Amino acid sequence: MYNPVEIIIKKRSGQALSEPELKFMVESYLAKSVPDYQMSAFLMAIFFAGMNDDETYLLTKTYINSGTRLNFDYDTVDKHSTGGVGDKVSLVLAPVIAACGGKIPMLSGRGLGHTGGTLDKLESIPGFTTALSEARFRQTIDSCGFSIASQSKDMVPADKQIYALRDVSGTVESFPLITASIMSKKIAEGAKNLVIDLKVGSGAFMKNLKDARELGRNLKKVGETFGQKVKIVYTNMNSPIGHYIGNALEIKECIEYLQGKPFPDLHIINKTLAVQMLTMCKLAECEKTAGKMVEEVLANGKALACFRQFIKLQDGNEKVVDDVSLLPKAEIELPIVSCESGYIQAIDSQAIGYALIDLQAGRKKLTDQLNHATGAKLTVKIGDKIEKNQPLGIVFCANEKQGKEVCQKIVQSLQISAKKPATESLILGIE
Amino acid sequence: MYNPVEIIIKKRSGQALSEPELKFMVESYLAKSVPDYQMSAFLMAIFFAGMNDDETYLLTKTYINSGTRLNFDYDTVDKHSTGGVGDKVSLVLAPVIAACGGKIPMLSGRGLGHTGGTLDKLESIPGFTTALSEARFRQTIDSCGFSIASQSKDMVPADKQIYALRDVSGTVESFPLITASIMSKKIAEGAKNLVIDLKVGSGAFMKNLKDARELGRNLKKVGETFGQKVKIVYTNMNSPIGHYIGNALEIKECIEYLQGKPFPDLHIINKTLAVQMLTMCKLAECEKTAGKMVEEVLANGKALACFRQFIKLQDGNEKVVDDVSLLPKAEIELPIVSCESGYIQAIDSQAIGYALIDLQAGRKKLTDQLNHATGAKLTVKIGDKIEKNQPLGIVFCANEKQGKEVCQKIVQSLQISAKKPATESLILGIE
Repeated sequence: MYNPVEIIIKKRSGQALSEPELKFMVESYLAKSVPDYQMSAFLMAIFFAGMNDDETYLLTKTYINSGTRLNFDYDTVDKHSTGGVGDKVSLVLAPVIAACGGKIPMLSGRGLGHTGGTLDKLESIPGFTTALSEARFRQTIDSCGFSIASQSKDMVPADKQIYALRDVSGTVESFPLITASIMSKKIAEGAKNLVIDLKVGSGAFMKNLKDARELGRNLKKVGETFGQKVKIVYTNMNSPIGHYIGNALEIKECIEYLQGKPFPDLHIINKTLAVQMLTMCKLAECEKTAGKMVEEVLANGKALACFRQFIKLQDGNEKVVDDVSLLPKAEIELPIVSCESGYIQAIDSQAIGYALIDLQAGRKKLTDQLNHATGAKLTVKIGDKIEKNQPLGIVFCANEKQGKEVCQKIVQSLQISAKKPATESLILGIE
Repeated sequence: MYNPVEIIIKKRSGQALSEPELKFMVESYLAKSVPDYQMSAFLMAIFFAGMNDDETYLLTKTYINSGTRLNFDYDTVDKHSTGGVGDKVSLVLAPVIAACGGKIPMLSGRGLGHTGGTLDKLESIPGFTTALSEARFRQTIDSCGFSIASQSKDMVPADKQIYALRDVSGTVESFPLITASIMSKKIAEGAKNLVIDLKVGSGAFMKNLKDARELGRNLKKVGETFGQKVKIVYTNMNSPIGHYIGNALEIKECIEYLQGKPFPDLHIINKTLAVQMLTMCKLAECEKTAGKMVEEVLANGKALACFRQFIKLQDGNEKVVDDVSLLPKAEIELPIVSCESGYIQAIDSQAIGYALIDLQAGRKKLTDQLNHATGAKLTVKIGDKIEKNQPLGIVFCANEKQGKEVCQKIVQSLQISAKKPATESLILGIE
């Protein structure tokens, strides 16, 4: 029998923990014999003392073994994003891959802090449900090639409980804890191939490429130890992705993108990830062919058709695909107007994400209620030249006073200067 | 209004916290709006990120302000020990200082882990009470020059609650937390002069003099910021102090010492601390005079008389001073016998302390019940030459099987070698 205090002190002093020790801590926590205050001290000790590759793998294994694990007879592929502002890529990527013949069992999460969540966005579609039984999750994948659902309470309960504790104890930003959290879910859901969109920049958790690569190495190593093929795509998260930020607004944008409307940055990221996924699971023999396949299913409406079928299968009103006005709509629209002239040098995406929480487009804590209709449209990007008094976008809100404050915060999030900045790459590396 | 997670993250990232931030964390914890799991993560962040001198002072201040603070019209002096095995020095030092005219308001603690507690030892005297009202604490000091009592629930409640949490969350061994815990109590009790017996060695928390000096510097700095005069005496804790370890056994030893029986190591430590205390509060003009005063009150029975009066004032049976057989006595006495010949090179005092917990002479957790009668007598010290089968001492127990195991553990705690070790100083430094 282990003593939790001795295990905390062992980790605190920088020693590596064994599989039985990690199992004891996690299982006892789930059984409530290790209380929250011991687990949070343990998590903070992990934050500081770190974990070696073996420990990170064993922690992930312990998480997975805390619940059920799905297995598919056929080849599967999934994508995970570490979270960005305006990041709706999963919502267009999944139908594209499905239209190309891929199978995606995507368990996703909710928005927290400055980044939005795929489930919240989907729930802005009238009637849409993200809580599926395992059988229904499988049926949806069988029928339309993908499903996006919430993690059931039987799946990786260890991560669910420990994540909730990390969020309120200041222990989120730890590489081994992030790795175990992401990879346990992506392995338990049954994805045999995985592409990770690792966001780097002002709007992302990882502020620089060096740290991002270190996290990427951790993620890849754990996936591969479980026999999963893993590719890491490092993408620039200095500007919000696309034009819209907000739940219903991003669904509208995804539909417009799948209908063929150009959103250059969204398209570059979507295509890059799709190409990796299609080649990994051998649906395309090379990247060039994969690229062509992506363009084709976007042009011929097959991806949009998959998205329509998916919405219907998950109880949503699939007519939104033809008429985006069926989505929730904010009562008030306020213009975002530039207060100076010059080139946009930088955009503080994180500040925009946090500002939109005031409109209930996002949440501070998991129990906060959302307003699916609110958010912002911002059409300018880093490097754009703007004039004083130029309209830059729109704030969608329910309260004029709050909306005006958000307009101001968004204007302040733009750093303007006289010199045109160097062009930034959207794709920073693939490993 | 502060967010506790933001404060945890600020400390975690190595930033110094302000007085309002520290006050918010401690007060909200006492008010239960900051839960245990946030406080334990915060404590672990302090363990790793440390605190600067100013933060340590402010934390101590916050602790003190969480409860009542005593103030005496006259000059007061106290002693604190960081805890050793067989450390009964307070019990002989207080009557010696009182007999020399000093006034000691000593709030003391209970034993935990391998070290014993002064209150537990006193409670082995039939009838003795350590729970005194403030009025009675003051009256006892007025009458016999000193009182030794437990901290009331109104005094430094912040430390009381946070210490209990540190104990179960692996966050005891942090210099700023140790400093705030010790100094808040020693300032709140109203001691104007303080001597700290900082134990160094195998039986102490501080294993080497370098770390001990760093802790000593922290303690002194905080005391002085509050206008307290502080002296640190670094003492060797490689062998248990005196001959006895165990609650009633140590009271017996103290009475014998005050009666004039020689216990060389106990006397050296007691006299060194007493000399510092007497000169600090100007009861002696120099160390030489102070030394003479100590010898005098031991020889003429005045210190013993103070001890007798103190026991009576705190409801104890003061006749124990004349007849130690009135103290609780163990049913079984087992000889500790050497199994090899040679010089004692080292004694693992900590191992002896932990072994005696099995006999209920000490406790693993604060709610454990004690057996006041059990313990051990060990008459040999580092450097002594012993022969195979030589009696080394006695184990006092209630259960023969357990007692035999403890005999074996004590024999094993002695490191024997053919070469006589270098003589160790008992007093390692005074600052």
